[in-house]
Amino acid sequence: MKRQTVKHSHRKIFTFWMLFWSICLIVLTAPAAAAPDPLPSWNDGAAKQAIIEFVQTVTDPSSPQYVEPWDRIATFDNDGTMWVSHPVYTEFVFALDRLRALAPQHPEWKNQMPFKKVLSGGIKAMAELSDEEWGHVYSATHSGMTIAAFLNLARDWLATAKHPRYQRSYTDLVYLPMLEAMKYLRAHGFTTYIVTGGGQEFGRAYAGRIYGVPPEQVVGSSLGTKYEYRDGQPALWRLPRVFFIDDHAGKAIGINLFIGKRPHIAFGNSNGDREMLEWTTAGGGTRLGLLVLHDDPIREYAYGPAGGLPDTTVGAFPPSLLDEAKKRGWVVISMKKDWRKIFTWE
Amino acid sequence: MKRQTVKHSHRKIFTFWMLFWSICLIVLTAPAAAAPDPLPSWNDGAAKQAIIEFVQTVTDPSSPQYVEPWDRIATFDNDGTMWVSHPVYTEFVFALDRLRALAPQHPEWKNQMPFKKVLSGGIKAMAELSDEEWGHVYSATHSGMTIAAFLNLARDWLATAKHPRYQRSYTDLVYLPMLEAMKYLRAHGFTTYIVTGGGQEFGRAYAGRIYGVPPEQVVGSSLGTKYEYRDGQPALWRLPRVFFIDDHAGKAIGINLFIGKRPHIAFGNSNGDREMLEWTTAGGGTRLGLLVLHDDPIREYAYGPAGGLPDTTVGAFPPSLLDEAKKRGWVVISMKKDWRKIFTWE
Repeated sequence: MKRQTVKHSHRKIFTFWMLFWSICLIVLTAPAAAAPDPLPSWNDGAAKQAIIEFVQTVTDPSSPQYVEPWDRIATFDNDGTMWVSHPVYTEFVFALDRLRALAPQHPEWKNQMPFKKVLSGGIKAMAELSDEEWGHVYSATHSGMTIAAFLNLARDWLATAKHPRYQRSYTDLVYLPMLEAMKYLRAHGFTTYIVTGGGQEFGRAYAGRIYGVPPEQVVGSSLGTKYEYRDGQPALWRLPRVFFIDDHAGKAIGINLFIGKRPHIAFGNSNGDREMLEWTTAGGGTRLGLLVLHDDPIREYAYGPAGGLPDTTVGAFPPSLLDEAKKRGWVVISMKKDWRKIFTWE
Repeated sequence: MKRQTVKHSHRKIFTFWMLFWSICLIVLTAPAAAAPDPLPSWNDGAAKQAIIEFVQTVTDPSSPQYVEPWDRIATFDNDGTMWVSHPVYTEFVFALDRLRALAPQHPEWKNQMPFKKVLSGGIKAMAELSDEEWGHVYSATHSGMTIAAFLNLARDWLATAKHPRYQRSYTDLVYLPMLEAMKYLRAHGFTTYIVTGGGQEFGRAYAGRIYGVPPEQVVGSSLGTKYEYRDGQPALWRLPRVFFIDDHAGKAIGINLFIGKRPHIAFGNSNGDREMLEWTTAGGGTRLGLLVLHDDPIREYAYGPAGGLPDTTVGAFPPSLLDEAKKRGWVVISMKKDWRKIFTWE
């Protein structure tokens, strides 16, 4: 009996330790094995890998490429990079609706360019405006009220307007993979800025709700502002005068003006993002520039170098930008190949 | 014996509980009693009390005046509010030194106003410049180089220049009580912005080191910037052209432009801070405006309403600002009475 008890006891001890170490092994390896994919809507490929490797490199304290948290700046163009900008920028649709609403008070627009052609030609005419002409439309449609009133106006419009193809709110047309990239960067200490060629206040009207990006992290174009007293209270009044255009070279200038730090990673999709990507990737250490290529005519659109639409299409870019991307090592994101899912509601 | 033992035992129990509750009382009250004064350089008084009560109110989740952390914005004027600005703004001394260094390359300045009078009249002439004249001097002295080169130039100058009276670096002339107020607000979730009438890049050259305020939290005046390629690399070049003046109404406008949120607390000291204080305190809920009064001719200076110097003195303000402070309930900080210690090195 005694020997049997000892043997039995040995077996028990052996079983206990086997179980103990097995559990330890499972507990210790489980988090690694089960670590959720930070970019689940991205297909495995060069673009996804580049983003993950970039984050691992600059956040690894033992890496010579380590970047301190306060220097981790990520900038995102909005139209065509974060959400659908085809057939025209969302803000163009807003401006056209606003122009039509204001037209009765402005009979002179019937004979005044560019108002005349936009009022008769609609969205198609809006899409063909030159930068200067857009400046006139932008000034006329975004001014004549306080900042607070404009934000309400923009939010009200965004709550009801629908995209002609998708028949959904424009704010529903955010690219899920980009939202994941933004959140992934934030989870690793990055401050994520929207750097839009569109209006800064228009951007502030949606960026908090759809991206979790607060007003101070929206860099954009702006109108002149006047400080004045209305009913004894100070008010900030929007003037019909362009103050700053945050596009092309203006994006690099705006980044310095508002942030004062050079981004380590920047996402763009059009010619207006060229200088932002150049400025970002010309910095020392590890920097990453990424260019969203609209090459998915089924789920979204194909335009620019990937589509049959002309380079003059809103948001498109000339082949030279794709050449520069190759030359400077920017990562081209193919919507068709790199994005498993494009929209949250798909 | 038995009775005695019982009695003895009762006494022991009593002593134990007395000790127990005494210790509890000490342990529970000690942290409150020993909680370090968050504003040790401030004398007890209305100003210190107003700051502490403000912070307690807006950070108390059970208060109807509670402010969410992301909306906790505190803005600080720099010259005369955070550091000595007498007899002239530090940046004026920098500009004069720079003007003298550049003069040999600009023989035309000998006959061109305002350069002519500043080159011959020195600091005194600088102090008397109109806003427009300062614009010319600012443009001429802060341009003609990249942003990066300007930051180096400003930092080099700040490292060697000395204040004529104190014979110390200008960056040593920070007001310790204000530094404490800034840190106290940050410790309670506030984001602290420098909102200066001076140059934004000049402010960025020192704000990180002396206040712990990063570049993106420095709102200031700026010059036009050009994006260009130098030796094949993109560069941001400073143009001799004023882009934005962050003073007077410009401070309220700049706060909206850069932050997009209305501050809950703002500190100023001069007429240039009037609109910032108005804009801040006209917001809903609990807001606090504070005005530093230079009334200490012994440790610092007495000017503006508190001194014998004229209202036109740099940084001074007319009695009407003090009247407005009273009318709107802004707290006036007396340097003489409210500040126990003014400088770290006192």
